[in-house]
Amino acid sequence: MAGSLTSRTLARPSFETAFEPPAFLAAMLAFESSLAGAQADEGLIPHASARAIAKACESVSFDVDGLVAEAKRSATLVVPFVKTLRATVAAVDRGAAEHLHFGATTQDVLDTAMALCIRPCLEEADRSLEGAVRALARRALEHRATPMLGRTLMQPAIAITAGVKIGRWALALAGDRERLAEAQGVALAIQWGGATGTQQGLGQRGIAARKHLARRLGLEDAPSWHVHRNAWIDLLDRVGLAVLTSGKIARDIALLMQPEVGEMRESPPKEGVGASSAMPHKRNPVACAHALAAATRMPGMLATLHAAAGVEHERALGGWQAELALVPEIVSALGSALDFLDIVASSLVVDPARMKMNLEAYGAPGTTIPGDEATMDEVLAALGPYLA
Amino acid sequence: MAGSLTSRTLARPSFETAFEPPAFLAAMLAFESSLAGAQADEGLIPHASARAIAKACESVSFDVDGLVAEAKRSATLVVPFVKTLRATVAAVDRGAAEHLHFGATTQDVLDTAMALCIRPCLEEADRSLEGAVRALARRALEHRATPMLGRTLMQPAIAITAGVKIGRWALALAGDRERLAEAQGVALAIQWGGATGTQQGLGQRGIAARKHLARRLGLEDAPSWHVHRNAWIDLLDRVGLAVLTSGKIARDIALLMQPEVGEMRESPPKEGVGASSAMPHKRNPVACAHALAAATRMPGMLATLHAAAGVEHERALGGWQAELALVPEIVSALGSALDFLDIVASSLVVDPARMKMNLEAYGAPGTTIPGDEATMDEVLAALGPYLA
Amino acid sequence: MAGSLTSRTLARPSFETAFEPPAFLAAMLAFESSLAGAQADEGLIPHASARAIAKACESVSFDVDGLVAEAKRSATLVVPFVKTLRATVAAVDRGAAEHLHFGATTQDVLDTAMALCIRPCLEEADRSLEGAVRALARRALEHRATPMLGRTLMQPAIAITAGVKIGRWALALAGDRERLAEAQGVALAIQWGGATGTQQGLGQRGIAARKHLARRLGLEDAPSWHVHRNAWIDLLDRVGLAVLTSGKIARDIALLMQPEVGEMRESPPKEGVGASSAMPHKRNPVACAHALAAATRMPGMLATLHAAAGVEHERALGGWQAELALVPEIVSALGSALDFLDIVASSLVVDPARMKMNLEAYGAPGTTIPGDEATMDEVLAALGPYLA
Amino acid sequence: MAGSLTSRTLARPSFETAFEPPAFLAAMLAFESSLAGAQADEGLIPHASARAIAKACESVSFDVDGLVAEAKRSATLVVPFVKTLRATVAAVDRGAAEHLHFGATTQDVLDTAMALCIRPCLEEADRSLEGAVRALARRALEHRATPMLGRTLMQPAIAITAGVKIGRWALALAGDRERLAEAQGVALAIQWGGATGTQQGLGQRGIAARKHLARRLGLEDAPSWHVHRNAWIDLLDRVGLAVLTSGKIARDIALLMQPEVGEMRESPPKEGVGASSAMPHKRNPVACAHALAAATRMPGMLATLHAAAGVEHERALGGWQAELALVPEIVSALGSALDFLDIVASSLVVDPARMKMNLEAYGAPGTTIPGDEATMDEVLAALGPYLA
Repeated sequence: MAGSLTSRTLARPSFETAFEPPAFLAAMLAFESSLAGAQADEGLIPHASARAIAKACESVSFDVDGLVAEAKRSATLVVPFVKTLRATVAAVDRGAAEHLHFGATTQDVLDTAMALCIRPCLEEADRSLEGAVRALARRALEHRATPMLGRTLMQPAIAITAGVKIGRWALALAGDRERLAEAQGVALAIQWGGATGTQQGLGQRGIAARKHLARRLGLEDAPSWHVHRNAWIDLLDRVGLAVLTSGKIARDIALLMQPEVGEMRESPPKEGVGASSAMPHKRNPVACAHALAAATRMPGMLATLHAAAGVEHERALGGWQAELALVPEIVSALGSALDFLDIVASSLVVDPARMKMNLEAYGAPGTTIPGDEATMDEVLAALGPYLA
Repeated sequence: MAGSLTSRTLARPSFETAFEPPAFLAAMLAFESSLAGAQADEGLIPHASARAIAKACESVSFDVDGLVAEAKRSATLVVPFVKTLRATVAAVDRGAAEHLHFGATTQDVLDTAMALCIRPCLEEADRSLEGAVRALARRALEHRATPMLGRTLMQPAIAITAGVKIGRWALALAGDRERLAEAQGVALAIQWGGATGTQQGLGQRGIAARKHLARRLGLEDAPSWHVHRNAWIDLLDRVGLAVLTSGKIARDIALLMQPEVGEMRESPPKEGVGASSAMPHKRNPVACAHALAAATRMPGMLATLHAAAGVEHERALGGWQAELALVPEIVSALGSALDFLDIVASSLVVDPARMKMNLEAYGAPGTTIPGDEATMDEVLAALGPYLA
Repeated sequence: MAGSLTSRTLARPSFETAFEPPAFLAAMLAFESSLAGAQADEGLIPHASARAIAKACESVSFDVDGLVAEAKRSATLVVPFVKTLRATVAAVDRGAAEHLHFGATTQDVLDTAMALCIRPCLEEADRSLEGAVRALARRALEHRATPMLGRTLMQPAIAITAGVKIGRWALALAGDRERLAEAQGVALAIQWGGATGTQQGLGQRGIAARKHLARRLGLEDAPSWHVHRNAWIDLLDRVGLAVLTSGKIARDIALLMQPEVGEMRESPPKEGVGASSAMPHKRNPVACAHALAAATRMPGMLATLHAAAGVEHERALGGWQAELALVPEIVSALGSALDFLDIVASSLVVDPARMKMNLEAYGAPGTTIPGDEATMDEVLAALGPYLA
Repeated sequence: MAGSLTSRTLARPSFETAFEPPAFLAAMLAFESSLAGAQADEGLIPHASARAIAKACESVSFDVDGLVAEAKRSATLVVPFVKTLRATVAAVDRGAAEHLHFGATTQDVLDTAMALCIRPCLEEADRSLEGAVRALARRALEHRATPMLGRTLMQPAIAITAGVKIGRWALALAGDRERLAEAQGVALAIQWGGATGTQQGLGQRGIAARKHLARRLGLEDAPSWHVHRNAWIDLLDRVGLAVLTSGKIARDIALLMQPEVGEMRESPPKEGVGASSAMPHKRNPVACAHALAAATRMPGMLATLHAAAGVEHERALGGWQAELALVPEIVSALGSALDFLDIVASSLVVDPARMKMNLEAYGAPGTTIPGDEATMDEVLAALGPYLA
């Protein structure tokens, strides 16, 4: 059992399991199995070997603690992983064992496995973001004429509509979703370059096999990106942007949920949600807390991500290795943000009466009528696809 | 006179002046002048007022120290700026003075001015990156069959060609250049939303005028993005990626420039360049130092950038303001990276004889012949447009 | 099972288990048990209740997955934790159950548990640092007259002795050790303030009980520091300093371990250590990779740490919660750094012949004789306590 | 003219000028002059030379733009600086010119100059912090029995006193002040080690002269710390802690200054302070904005600081150079925080009536009477020295 107890209380379970040993080992096996298949497609290894390897990948089992201990010695998980897998292949087909992991290296396996493990998380994120945008777009439409106080520098400004505020949240999330989709189309790519990233000696068949590998794994094809990782970093930066928007929305809701303001709540009061261990009457903005914790963590993680990518020569010493701990944490923060968005999508409470009251009490003299119809229309038009 | 002496020794002069008072005030004036023009186009203010404002923008002069002192009191540069400018307009056309800065607010002026000031830097960066890619692509072609040691985890691996190594640097920079161009096409946008970002009361004519404003300033049109800044952040993240690649190349060159390795130099030895104040014989890798300093600074700056964007309600208290100090620093780091690339583009020294020697001395047994022709061809094909 | 597979391959096992459910729950139970004891000491609750609570703390068992799921709903692990524990107490002594967690709140339990869980790690770090300083001090003494090339800006400078270089590493680590010890003496403190950190209504007996609690747990006594966390952050910053020094040493060794330089190795070549999955002949600087990965991760984590501490009012929304994921990661990076130091302490290889050769080949003309005896003496004098 | 216009609007003027060319060049001259004097004290150079150098340091003038341009070529400001200064010395005493900068190197000058330039800022910070603690301590005493709502997770909790809240701010600042003083006593040290930090060939007289140098400059004596910079970083981390506390206080005040809450203001409304360019009626929390901007910037800057310190061998390539831009920025952020503290110290407005109203309206049932007398007493006792 690994992983700190406290970090688990912030995590989205499906995003946590995505990088735990069963899922990650499955992704590593998918790489080795598909690699063998792709190489057989191009005649680089015999088809029989590829079949034996594929079979072994289905039946092999790992002693995770042993793997980890061994991995520490060689600073690579792949050495003990391949050793165990090779023994499993060899037990059935001695020759095939020689063809396992052919022309590949540690970083090929781990980078590809990372892409495979992050993929379902990003798919889930896409659905969650879409759901949040749809739900918020509907709330924006519903409140297109609900006046509320606009607030700048944490002081009352002039009137806006709740629709504009909520609609802009939705648009921002829609933008993040598009940016993520765009980056995924490039960055969810296989890694396969071997010892120095040049598919040493495999020639054109190496490149052809690489394309097969990509197809088999359902990832993008890409020349080895092991030391020039900016497409990958661009994708994770954009994960950061989605977390950032969630944090901004959570900050707004938490401010509006102060009882002195009372204009929104993340969800209706509900038994046990947001309970305090000291004050039974309290209902804390739990979902906001998760989104804000994620948004607090993300900038530092992006700093590490960028710092880690300044690698030496044909493979990093220390930089890339830092990613091994980092990427699951970045995804974990995204999970917390999505947990928040899911709740807001289903449960956001808006209180137009209180909005009116505050606007009248604190709005700038003579500016309590929102004059943002054109802006509202523009926001709703941009949200059109999500309102359909 | 402002700005620390030491930071100036790292800076690219044209990138430094881009945000200094003359340039920044000119950008602020361009906003006010074009805003008036755009509003006149839509009949929101009289044409005569727009003309008077445009004239005043040409003739006004500012007491910079006074502006700064006033700006501290109101936490906005725009209050004293508009006050001075309004007096200048009023001296000629009292009525026009009322139409100055109409429907606009501090952040409109400053965000737009930032976009205007960063634009020539990004244009210069584009040219510099293109030049570096072209130069490195040619060197890659030249060294497509020059064997050298591939190095992983800072230890010798198997042979690669110098062409593959240099070609990949070029490709990485080309990718950064494309990502930057793509992001600029979205993020170099005007900001105009007024008090709460909704163009309060201007209706459809407000939106139409906004489009005129964009056209007049040569920036993209965009609905107010004052609190949802992810397109802008995405652009600056990508500035970070270009700096990161430069840092990686500089790290590689600095490692190869160790005399024990001796395979490359950033430039041929030259009187005064890289001199030491203690050891006259030394020739330090000065350009690499600049690129590495920039790459060292960037991750923390991106962390700040993301942290600053989690703003409250309709305008930030503290977050956005942090950008005011940050954006010029980010651009300054880009400048240092470009200085490095310019030097490498014109002066990189490659020593094939030394490469051969090291390869034979330290290469893995039996793997001293690079087998990366297909990879080399793929790299050169991708660099095709830059080799034409 | 939780925790990413890949992050585990970087971790020091004892530092990983320190925050896993068994250890962390034990620390939480220690808090509740000692709290009851301390309150009984002051007559705030009956002694019988304290005894019943202490007993329950020994026998209670938790469904970790259930705890975590519940914790997500209330955004606090302590609500379901106390619920389960209270049921266990109530099964034996209904009245005592009412006295459980009396006057305490979530953050009291978690902050104190964090301090309890980090304590053995810091003790282990202290021993490891001491061992590294002692070992390096001896190597410095041994090589006090071994000439080697000093290198600045990654270029040869003039001669130094290996003793000065290694001795300074040792001194830097000794300084980090002292700074850590100093900060621990303040920051390893109990947290107990209740709902708003003021021990509401407990009066002088509350403060007296707090002192008992500190004594019982072997932690420092401190007024509630739940929202002013700078002593704690100062301690973790200093963890960062130790990781930084380890990274600097690892960078130096990795540079010296390049075969073209060949002056040091982190350890003698050894079967299986530093193996590559692609190149069986390789011996990678595995320990350096761990230290450098840790040093790469740390700056971003410190950024998060500082950002997370800007909390709102009497308890954070999001900031402090971010620490729950962060602190174990910071400790994990320290663990990687210590793993490196342990290896270097026992196995560092120095090659004086190669040092001489490089010095003669690349040293500045006429400066190949180290003239640093006085500096060497000063370093050794400062290391005196570690050489005894 | 250098320095971005916008960054100046956040800066404390005295902290800005501290690193500008006149001040920084004066500090560099102080180093050279005192170095010569210290060396003459030990007979390393003739007294006549020291006098000639001292004189030249008083009369020399620099073409700053020329210095900067030259500095870019050699990546060190010190090469052209020493060249100009040497010419000035030589004009009077040819022999003395040879004794200028004897045994010193770039980093010696710049690190020492940084320490000299930061010193008055830290002294000013100490006074400002002391003033803020005194002022807040008095306010705490004044409001020791003023009930107000304690707020946790941005929701009402139970009653506290305004005195406890304000008193804890004061205590936190007092703690930061002490930590800063402690670190300064170690870290405001001279740097003098020459080419590789070993005072090559100067022997015991070198160390003796170093002590004279420290005394002459009023800085701490320290063996060369050019590559092991943790004492220095520890000091700057603690600057970060003071900025953090200021940000926390600003966050609290900004939340309380929301008109819906209305319990505090950073200062009474005043013509022109906090004005808006769009909404003349507004009074923005300007001082809070500055403190929060500083607190937003600091974590990323500390990340850079730590990352920059992982230097190679006997002098960094890129890391230390990054500090040259960073340190003035860190001090600038401190300046913004102090500007806030100065205002709060003199002008904080507390509204007990509104506190009572909110407490009654939103406090937990039956918990509206603060029960924190003992805590209050403990806080006031700790603040004793500041209340005298």
